[in-house]
Amino acid sequence: MHAQSTRVHFASDNNAGAHPRMLAAIAEANAGHVAGYGGDEYTARAVEAFRELLGPQAQAFFVFNGSGANIVALAAALRPHQAVICPSHAHVAVDECGGFERFAGAKLIDVPVRDGKLTPADVEAQLRGIGDPHHVQPGAVTVSQTTEVGTVYSITELRALADVAHRNGLLFHVDGARIANAAVALDVDLRTLLVETNVDVCSFGGTKNGLLFGEAVVFPRPHPALEVMPYARKQAMQLASKMRFVAAQFDALLREGLWRENAAHANRMAKLLAERVGAIEGVRIAYPVEANGVFAALPPAAIAPLQRERRFYVWDADASVVRWMTAFDTTEDDVHDFADAVARVVREVR
Amino acid sequence: MHAQSTRVHFASDNNAGAHPRMLAAIAEANAGHVAGYGGDEYTARAVEAFRELLGPQAQAFFVFNGSGANIVALAAALRPHQAVICPSHAHVAVDECGGFERFAGAKLIDVPVRDGKLTPADVEAQLRGIGDPHHVQPGAVTVSQTTEVGTVYSITELRALADVAHRNGLLFHVDGARIANAAVALDVDLRTLLVETNVDVCSFGGTKNGLLFGEAVVFPRPHPALEVMPYARKQAMQLASKMRFVAAQFDALLREGLWRENAAHANRMAKLLAERVGAIEGVRIAYPVEANGVFAALPPAAIAPLQRERRFYVWDADASVVRWMTAFDTTEDDVHDFADAVARVVREVR
Amino acid sequence: MHAQSTRVHFASDNNAGAHPRMLAAIAEANAGHVAGYGGDEYTARAVEAFRELLGPQAQAFFVFNGSGANIVALAAALRPHQAVICPSHAHVAVDECGGFERFAGAKLIDVPVRDGKLTPADVEAQLRGIGDPHHVQPGAVTVSQTTEVGTVYSITELRALADVAHRNGLLFHVDGARIANAAVALDVDLRTLLVETNVDVCSFGGTKNGLLFGEAVVFPRPHPALEVMPYARKQAMQLASKMRFVAAQFDALLREGLWRENAAHANRMAKLLAERVGAIEGVRIAYPVEANGVFAALPPAAIAPLQRERRFYVWDADASVVRWMTAFDTTEDDVHDFADAVARVVREVR
Amino acid sequence: MHAQSTRVHFASDNNAGAHPRMLAAIAEANAGHVAGYGGDEYTARAVEAFRELLGPQAQAFFVFNGSGANIVALAAALRPHQAVICPSHAHVAVDECGGFERFAGAKLIDVPVRDGKLTPADVEAQLRGIGDPHHVQPGAVTVSQTTEVGTVYSITELRALADVAHRNGLLFHVDGARIANAAVALDVDLRTLLVETNVDVCSFGGTKNGLLFGEAVVFPRPHPALEVMPYARKQAMQLASKMRFVAAQFDALLREGLWRENAAHANRMAKLLAERVGAIEGVRIAYPVEANGVFAALPPAAIAPLQRERRFYVWDADASVVRWMTAFDTTEDDVHDFADAVARVVREVR
Repeated sequence: MHAQSTRVHFASDNNAGAHPRMLAAIAEANAGHVAGYGGDEYTARAVEAFRELLGPQAQAFFVFNGSGANIVALAAALRPHQAVICPSHAHVAVDECGGFERFAGAKLIDVPVRDGKLTPADVEAQLRGIGDPHHVQPGAVTVSQTTEVGTVYSITELRALADVAHRNGLLFHVDGARIANAAVALDVDLRTLLVETNVDVCSFGGTKNGLLFGEAVVFPRPHPALEVMPYARKQAMQLASKMRFVAAQFDALLREGLWRENAAHANRMAKLLAERVGAIEGVRIAYPVEANGVFAALPPAAIAPLQRERRFYVWDADASVVRWMTAFDTTEDDVHDFADAVARVVREVR
Repeated sequence: MHAQSTRVHFASDNNAGAHPRMLAAIAEANAGHVAGYGGDEYTARAVEAFRELLGPQAQAFFVFNGSGANIVALAAALRPHQAVICPSHAHVAVDECGGFERFAGAKLIDVPVRDGKLTPADVEAQLRGIGDPHHVQPGAVTVSQTTEVGTVYSITELRALADVAHRNGLLFHVDGARIANAAVALDVDLRTLLVETNVDVCSFGGTKNGLLFGEAVVFPRPHPALEVMPYARKQAMQLASKMRFVAAQFDALLREGLWRENAAHANRMAKLLAERVGAIEGVRIAYPVEANGVFAALPPAAIAPLQRERRFYVWDADASVVRWMTAFDTTEDDVHDFADAVARVVREVR
Repeated sequence: MHAQSTRVHFASDNNAGAHPRMLAAIAEANAGHVAGYGGDEYTARAVEAFRELLGPQAQAFFVFNGSGANIVALAAALRPHQAVICPSHAHVAVDECGGFERFAGAKLIDVPVRDGKLTPADVEAQLRGIGDPHHVQPGAVTVSQTTEVGTVYSITELRALADVAHRNGLLFHVDGARIANAAVALDVDLRTLLVETNVDVCSFGGTKNGLLFGEAVVFPRPHPALEVMPYARKQAMQLASKMRFVAAQFDALLREGLWRENAAHANRMAKLLAERVGAIEGVRIAYPVEANGVFAALPPAAIAPLQRERRFYVWDADASVVRWMTAFDTTEDDVHDFADAVARVVREVR
Repeated sequence: MHAQSTRVHFASDNNAGAHPRMLAAIAEANAGHVAGYGGDEYTARAVEAFRELLGPQAQAFFVFNGSGANIVALAAALRPHQAVICPSHAHVAVDECGGFERFAGAKLIDVPVRDGKLTPADVEAQLRGIGDPHHVQPGAVTVSQTTEVGTVYSITELRALADVAHRNGLLFHVDGARIANAAVALDVDLRTLLVETNVDVCSFGGTKNGLLFGEAVVFPRPHPALEVMPYARKQAMQLASKMRFVAAQFDALLREGLWRENAAHANRMAKLLAERVGAIEGVRIAYPVEANGVFAALPPAAIAPLQRERRFYVWDADASVVRWMTAFDTTEDDVHDFADAVARVVREVR
């Protein structure tokens, strides 16, 4: 492994490794034999950690990854004729290779959105054909928090979505692959973010916030889907036999606020990056930088040369908008180094 | 965590933790940023490690767990009208909560077997209704190696199954959750076990042999299903974003023979346990102890008292047969301690 | 079309054409335009006809065929982790090409049975792993009435199955492709057969009892699955646009007792056939002839020559048992002609 | 049944009954016993009728309805990671209650279109993420001919779509629920329409063109999906036991040109209706009337009063566009009577 290949880059927060405390937590949990599949004390403690943050009624189910969290949560709650209303670039709609359709057998109704955010009016516009057997029946609303373009729903916006969902008998699901970054951005605790907003179920991200692997499907309150969850998780191949190794990481993440610390750092690095690159002539910040993603419009000619030096994704080729993500381990030096490279390349092509 | 709760027991080899070298491998791989989803050097190296053992044509796809390995391998190779012939207590048939049926949409044809082993005659007996659209069409044969009752198919037996499968246009899949234990039992290398036997695809176990988590779907030779594998793995929620942490473990497992060392130790402990308990009056070894499982018939009255002291599973309640598994970390002391407990409890109930 | 090719044979009751009154009903219903998909008066009347026979709470959903009826009924009632307990030669298990598994995504637990009949003890023996996420959870019991070997569950037997199902929270479904033959065999009305036995849902056969095509999924009483049925039927491609043509046939079948008349005739012809062939030396009636099927053990050498003359299926090749079905249009002459052929061929090979 | 309720209306061509020759064909086919599931001479003859029109390599599979035809054709040809590119108001996308997603487990990529027509550029714009396992892989293009708004793809347009599909390894499927109306509109034979355009598979409509029920999945040329078709049809609950009754209707429809006669009549009635209503002040024809559908923009206030008198669907509530369909049995008097009603109601609200 060369230094080059492991330099911090800005392609994705999942390109980071694991936070050292995760390795420590795993090493500590690696003592002797314990029951498999979650029947161990590590799992009980990690569930308890969620309850301390979300209230005593919360339930958490650990899974391997974000694909699993989203698909299991929605499939447990829905029947196949029930569709999921989502923003058109929802991860579950565009980045799962159709895994939701295959496993849940149901349809996604993807709605074009601005700034990545679905509105109650968007939801209402999709409440069509209710009771008509020719049409799929809306069964859930899902939004990503933070959004796929790095913006953050306010508490009021989330509650309004929950309201329109519940008034119409729909489940309200939050894809929280970056939920910690959202809590930091809004400066709220998780109870405010997930309980007071009436979220029904949240895919609570771990991997992008410092875990080796692992996400949690979290129900803040009792819900009929809870009865189905254990089976849906197993059918979805998301039940870890050595679950203690996911649970111990979540325990370490949630206790003593590491989840918030990691996310706060990543958010700060994104702000810094946005300040630096926003000041470069020819670069325009495309969406408000509210969490740990910076979306920037570059001169089209700059993208390819910069990608030859650094790894990152083009978000919207037509608009020449690229995506840069920061992580818990991104340093100020990394940011400056990267911003310098952007400035240089952009200057060269202008 | 009390000492009691983490004492080595014999319930399952997945109740063990991780081998220390796995933790070391993860720590080493935790340097800086690398591409996600397998586009990293750790993954390339681990695939290379498989090629060194299986030949240059081998392909390996890392997944999270054994459920995922089996279901993805079979779903990638089959269409939904193609059924899988398997022994009636195949893991995929009885321990996946119907996950195969749900994800693959196909049928399992489960055949009652003796000593856990499917025979070519069993396969031939299921080749019915070929070409008749009312009937599912056999598309694959799957067997567990080691079997679910701790026995091991010989090389000749495997080759005969591959032959009958291939003569009839069927895929031959091996559920190798304990493939290392089988290689040790047969005293063969992996090339002999998986390539010379003409296995088409193997779910290569890591978790039960010392990993924190992680299995591999391994194709020893080119196969049409390879084209579908990347998509099937993603749809099955089995594509890890930080794949380096699975890959680095496999690399550490495969290089320098740790896979064999761990399995050999577990097998030895099972032999020792079988010797000890087989000598207890009232206990009968139910199946040949060829790998790391000991299946023993106990006096019915002994089971409940023993389970109050030690964690293990009843395999066949009617026959009063229980299952005890050894792991890479089971010590001779653990075995003697456990055998002593068995002897005492059995004596007390007689 | 030659006379030969359309001679009444005994291969299946679905080899018969349609009863003349069905053609008349269709012609009558063929007046002008009516709303599609069941929003017409013919459908309303046919549902009403079911209510007159089964009680005012009954609901009927018309579908195209028996595959559709069984799969839609079970898929509407179950979630994919819920398995269906059935006799091992249930039509849904062996004759649908895995369509149930594909559409419902769930598992069938097929139980070997004698005389085609599942018993409450068979059901109880499958109530394992309840609450264990590794295991599918039994969600329904299904039996065929008449059975696949031409026998008939008594009212007491059905009620006992319903009882064991309901005590354990399972749906009780009856595959009634030949439900009319069963009612005649038991000499009961449909209310006794389907309501007093506490059947939850019945696939009510039309095609084998004289319709051109068409079956009904009938719920004698309100059931939560009713809410899902309209969508499940549509998703299953079983919602006819010109539904009046199914409905009008059912109306004609149910009113004035044609359903019973047709079934009674077919049953009588089976009895006659059984008397005739049972008297032939070398032929043994394999199962009690209670409805419209005759299962007979022939001298093995007789089967092929007889099949060269007449079309019919071998039921159990090992036991040399063949299946002969009678239909609403089988005549006494047809029976005698067929029995004569059997006698001749059997004599020739002895 | 009152005259009122069966008056010819313009809601849908499937609100019509069956053409009298269909009833005659069914009566003729109702002679004695024949093999079930398509093993009969009627089915062989109907397949032959397709070959006479499309060439000797054509294959036809009869199914119950259009839902079945579309879903079986696409599911037989595709794997679940392969998506179907379609216009956003394709029937398979909006009117099947998600049946395609449920049965095929795959995704539909629905593209907003003008005049109901997909263009090669639309297809090319969706060829993204090829080879990337996060993305569904385009596997087919499907268009409706006639389109859902009553327009007709030219031969050149179809061939261009086939070309772009084939250049990119995609199947080209045509939903031909109204394929006969398209052939008449283009004044071409079926060979020109389906073979020379390089269509891979067509859902060939029967029901809307005079059948009681029945559609055909037609492959003009050999295709790998043919191997899967018999099983996919069975799994999809679309295999009729008394298939002669579908086949005999298709035979009657295809021989002696009834298919063209019926469609030509319906098309003429649509033209007449368009002339009449297009001349009404306040009414605007919304799409070119090329086949048997008239889409008209009405004064918003006129819609509800007119719907109180006559049954029809609103196509686009925002644009105040309604849909009127003509059928094989619509008379000139029906058209004038309906147009008079439109004129009166529109006048009243202006």
